[in-house]
Amino acid sequence: MIERILIANRGEIAVRIIRTCKEMGIETVAIYSTADKDALHVQYATKAVCIGGPRSDESYLNMQRILSAACLTGCDAIHPGFGFLSENPAFARLVEQCGLIFIGPDADVIEMMGNKARAKETMIEAGVPVIPGSRGVVELDEAFQVARAIGFPVLIKARSGGGGRGMRVAEAEEDFIDAYTTARAEARTAFGDDGVYVEKVVQSAKHIEVQLLADHYGNVLHLFERDCSLQRRNQKIVEEAPCCCLPEKIREAMTADAVKASRYVGYNSVGTIEFLWDGAERYYFMEMNTRIQVEHTISEMITGIDLIKQQIRIADKKKCNLKQEDIRCLGHAIECRINAEDVSADFAPRPGHISFLNLPGGRGVRVDTAIYNGYDIPPYYDSMILKCITNGESRLEAIKKMRIALEELIVEGVPNNVEFLYVLMHEPEFIKGRFDTGYVDTFVQELKDNGTIV
Amino acid sequence: MIERILIANRGEIAVRIIRTCKEMGIETVAIYSTADKDALHVQYATKAVCIGGPRSDESYLNMQRILSAACLTGCDAIHPGFGFLSENPAFARLVEQCGLIFIGPDADVIEMMGNKARAKETMIEAGVPVIPGSRGVVELDEAFQVARAIGFPVLIKARSGGGGRGMRVAEAEEDFIDAYTTARAEARTAFGDDGVYVEKVVQSAKHIEVQLLADHYGNVLHLFERDCSLQRRNQKIVEEAPCCCLPEKIREAMTADAVKASRYVGYNSVGTIEFLWDGAERYYFMEMNTRIQVEHTISEMITGIDLIKQQIRIADKKKCNLKQEDIRCLGHAIECRINAEDVSADFAPRPGHISFLNLPGGRGVRVDTAIYNGYDIPPYYDSMILKCITNGESRLEAIKKMRIALEELIVEGVPNNVEFLYVLMHEPEFIKGRFDTGYVDTFVQELKDNGTIV
Repeated sequence: MIERILIANRGEIAVRIIRTCKEMGIETVAIYSTADKDALHVQYATKAVCIGGPRSDESYLNMQRILSAACLTGCDAIHPGFGFLSENPAFARLVEQCGLIFIGPDADVIEMMGNKARAKETMIEAGVPVIPGSRGVVELDEAFQVARAIGFPVLIKARSGGGGRGMRVAEAEEDFIDAYTTARAEARTAFGDDGVYVEKVVQSAKHIEVQLLADHYGNVLHLFERDCSLQRRNQKIVEEAPCCCLPEKIREAMTADAVKASRYVGYNSVGTIEFLWDGAERYYFMEMNTRIQVEHTISEMITGIDLIKQQIRIADKKKCNLKQEDIRCLGHAIECRINAEDVSADFAPRPGHISFLNLPGGRGVRVDTAIYNGYDIPPYYDSMILKCITNGESRLEAIKKMRIALEELIVEGVPNNVEFLYVLMHEPEFIKGRFDTGYVDTFVQELKDNGTIV
Repeated sequence: MIERILIANRGEIAVRIIRTCKEMGIETVAIYSTADKDALHVQYATKAVCIGGPRSDESYLNMQRILSAACLTGCDAIHPGFGFLSENPAFARLVEQCGLIFIGPDADVIEMMGNKARAKETMIEAGVPVIPGSRGVVELDEAFQVARAIGFPVLIKARSGGGGRGMRVAEAEEDFIDAYTTARAEARTAFGDDGVYVEKVVQSAKHIEVQLLADHYGNVLHLFERDCSLQRRNQKIVEEAPCCCLPEKIREAMTADAVKASRYVGYNSVGTIEFLWDGAERYYFMEMNTRIQVEHTISEMITGIDLIKQQIRIADKKKCNLKQEDIRCLGHAIECRINAEDVSADFAPRPGHISFLNLPGGRGVRVDTAIYNGYDIPPYYDSMILKCITNGESRLEAIKKMRIALEELIVEGVPNNVEFLYVLMHEPEFIKGRFDTGYVDTFVQELKDNGTIV
């Protein structure tokens, strides 16, 4: 039975986890870097241990120090949150080797799903639709053949890629050789690995992800889907649940596929399967996130289920106490990610001193944050400082509540994206639900073109 | 159709009303006293009008100024909130005479229910159980007869009384004459009216109130009950919904009686009927509140219904869009009233400067407040500065969430009752639900006796 958890994270997710632990009667040990000595998660935890300097490799990514802290404080489990070490199979293994419980799925599953090519192969085996393309890495000739077979435009993607590097789109046959060789060269330079694969470009697609909950006893449940298509340069900024325009037939097929995939890999924690949905009949597996996600909050709002509580229970080898038929989707929820960033400077992170903070409140408003009045945002970590979540009976009610909440939210001292999100909440295309994963980038460009963003 | 509402109130309830108005697309006009120029309701409203000095009679109780402000700003309705003019029939009449909508029931009903003796008579006519006692004011001989008939202890209460003055308990026959004459003399001095009546003392009773919703078309619904027994000197401090120990049979009878009472008086707004429940088979009508109440929030949490929205819709002569069978009680909700007061100085109000504020957050936590960092609480008004509401699937979950929320809530600069409430949330009798309306006073005395409160 888990009695004391070390939280290998910081910021709002550390605070979020501490809240549920307190409710479950579980003690918490916070770790922190010297830059985080005044952080809220340090205050809220039962105990806190400084494990190193501000750089992540000295602290939040330093496995040895984290494990020492866990052992020295008598923890029996480690919650990795998201980011940092949450999807690092070596860390998960080390935790288990130290005799502690890693609050997440088995290390092997993390490893398998962390390897894009293997994950895709596995999904094909499981019978889950994947984006058409080459099976793994391909040389030029075969790549070209595959591209012709699946039809242009196609994407050439580095096996070891990430953050958009080692990635090129070939719009038509004549662009292919150039795109392929550039992507490969870039991959070699950036990752020391020039293996690339080819994939169909799914146009005007929505990013739809299914929240899963699986225990050690073969119970796999889904908590419906989230529409996370509002992304700026592949970074989610607004999420909602459920997706407002997903036909029931597709929802059923997609959630069933997600459950099937989870069963196939023997998943046993909370997790997410991300799909690309073409807005019509087809959807494709993109990747699996083997951890809690930033946007888990909106699934909590529509289902009433505490996902962190479930995650801890499962890690503690408890049987899932929920049944699929009891999980209902009530109303609609939206999350906005508030970042300390300068919208006018291409959304560059802007840490600094919070000179005044006023939080929104009232019915249907949830705030998850770790900042407070007078807090100094350290420059070393993620720029997300607050999650504002609203829920309502209808999508429109949730949108209206979000507008009101963003009007009430005042963050002074650092540039931030509150106004940008506020404008977005009023955009007709957003309100109508007519947006794909490219929408925000186009919208930002429009705002730049018309001088709204200088 | 209501398009612009003047909010004849201040503080968190004004903010609460503005939020719903925004969601409904209704403009708001805030009024404020010179002491409230930096108040949040002034910032949040579409428009704000300063109507006078800090004293309530110069501003929030000044009917003429409020009506002038409403007319000059083109409002079509006035929301009175609670307190101030919310239960003043003369004000409701004036509002209507100015051609504006009073967001509340008809003035005649306010007047009838505001007169304790008439309200009781009316409930007897309606067939709703009332506290046994004399029918109206009685002279000594008849009073003594009534007391003997209903059984001791009895209460002698001034017709014009309030705040505990002009009120005496006679524990037994031999105390009666003394208690009667003292009560009468005190009433004469305090209110210039020595009319008194006699009532049975309902011992170990809980204060249970039923939330009602009635429109102009004969639809009357209830939103279950609230247990508001946790009161310090007749002031509610913690409320919860539903009552954890009310047998289903009593709940059904009580809510049915509340609906019956509402129908009988032709009620047409949101309102509350307060009952005293003896913990067994009997309950008695105490009074009807013909307005929204502080603790309406917890009924909103368990039913998912926005009571202010319903109240405005009804005032706008819309038909109620809800059905009794659709109103379900989901989970449990608790509200704590945070006051700026010195617990050690007999809970005396302590206005002042908020030097630091940290609000609780996360799943299942709702905060309704009008204070912020650096805010100066003016000394002229109520000491309640924040309502913290938690809800959970079970009562215990709601209690745990409240404890966590109170741990997170930091209000620096003014003495407050956060710690007192935190202790209360851990008391075995509270957790077991074993408390009556006298519980908190006894608990406070205990804390004084054992030196916890100095």
